[in-house]
Amino acid sequence: MNKGCLIVVSGPSGTGKGTVCAALLARYPQIAYSVSATTRPPRPGEKEGVNYYFLDKPVFEKMIADGELLEWAEVFGNYYGTPFRKIQDRLAAGQDILLEIDTQGAMSVKKRFPNGIFIFLLPPSLAELERRIRGRGQDDEESIRRRLAASAGEIAVAKEYRYVVVNEEVDRSVETIWSILTAEHCRVSRNAALIETIGQLP
Amino acid sequence: MNKGCLIVVSGPSGTGKGTVCAALLARYPQIAYSVSATTRPPRPGEKEGVNYYFLDKPVFEKMIADGELLEWAEVFGNYYGTPFRKIQDRLAAGQDILLEIDTQGAMSVKKRFPNGIFIFLLPPSLAELERRIRGRGQDDEESIRRRLAASAGEIAVAKEYRYVVVNEEVDRSVETIWSILTAEHCRVSRNAALIETIGQLP
Repeated sequence: MNKGCLIVVSGPSGTGKGTVCAALLARYPQIAYSVSATTRPPRPGEKEGVNYYFLDKPVFEKMIADGELLEWAEVFGNYYGTPFRKIQDRLAAGQDILLEIDTQGAMSVKKRFPNGIFIFLLPPSLAELERRIRGRGQDDEESIRRRLAASAGEIAVAKEYRYVVVNEEVDRSVETIWSILTAEHCRVSRNAALIETIGQLP
Repeated sequence: MNKGCLIVVSGPSGTGKGTVCAALLARYPQIAYSVSATTRPPRPGEKEGVNYYFLDKPVFEKMIADGELLEWAEVFGNYYGTPFRKIQDRLAAGQDILLEIDTQGAMSVKKRFPNGIFIFLLPPSLAELERRIRGRGQDDEESIRRRLAASAGEIAVAKEYRYVVVNEEVDRSVETIWSILTAEHCRVSRNAALIETIGQLP
């Protein structure tokens, strides 16, 4: 059996990666979502254990100390991290797993899973990104400027990923990510045993 | 503008690569087909300039001498080759181009186009391949044995490709190859200029 693929999706704040990832999981339920842990407060509508595990700082810090996180980072004063346990087992069982994490986290994951499918979701432009962040109406002016500058910095990290997808339209981005996953499952490097089996003379 | 991709599809005789490639081009006419040249006689239904350029040996040998072929090979006593001219220009103009060639030819192309999308089409098994070749009813017993042995040898070359697609069903293989092309267009290595542009602060 083919091993599962670890799909890592990052993108600047406001690019719509949450929406795209949710639509991907809804459309392709065979992909499992790795729920991240965070110490930031839930946004309206976010659910414990679905969007994030919302943890207190001391609990999060104990998980760091106990080595229970694949990666973790502090962003805008809050911790974000990926619980490591189940991921390895699920991949070995052939399950594809989606991680939606920031660029710092993705670069940590890349060290442990160099064959992961690293996808950077791009906004059509930073001007469009600014429009989207303002449209969300959750951020003050200073925070918006800070986020845009941070986004420019993050986009520079896109070249460390394997793929970029410009998020013009959610459904199209979902299908593109699915195509990337389909292609990755066909990579020769993931199919040595299959090639061997098929090449046996009858 | 994104440069076009060179898609190279190979597979053992009888795997159905001709059928799959024809269906791919019919469904996605934005992909151009690079018509190969050959000295073998046309099979029933094959058309000059569509399936192949059917050439006499002296003409083919002059093309070899004049360096007009990207690759060429002699297989079962006949020449097969890929006219080089238009390919480079079309790729630069953003056109995706499909080459359907044998493993020898593909390995020559790989030297000139290391970033080509090399796809090896596999039969579900060699027993299934034998059944398909017999079903076609065009080959005598000795030829079938020779082809099966050659197929086993070719499948061993599959590991030099980037992707393998098991041709269980033509439409599914077409969609898988389209997914591979979609994914390849998203590779970071093909999108450096785009990342640069999108990362500009407004």
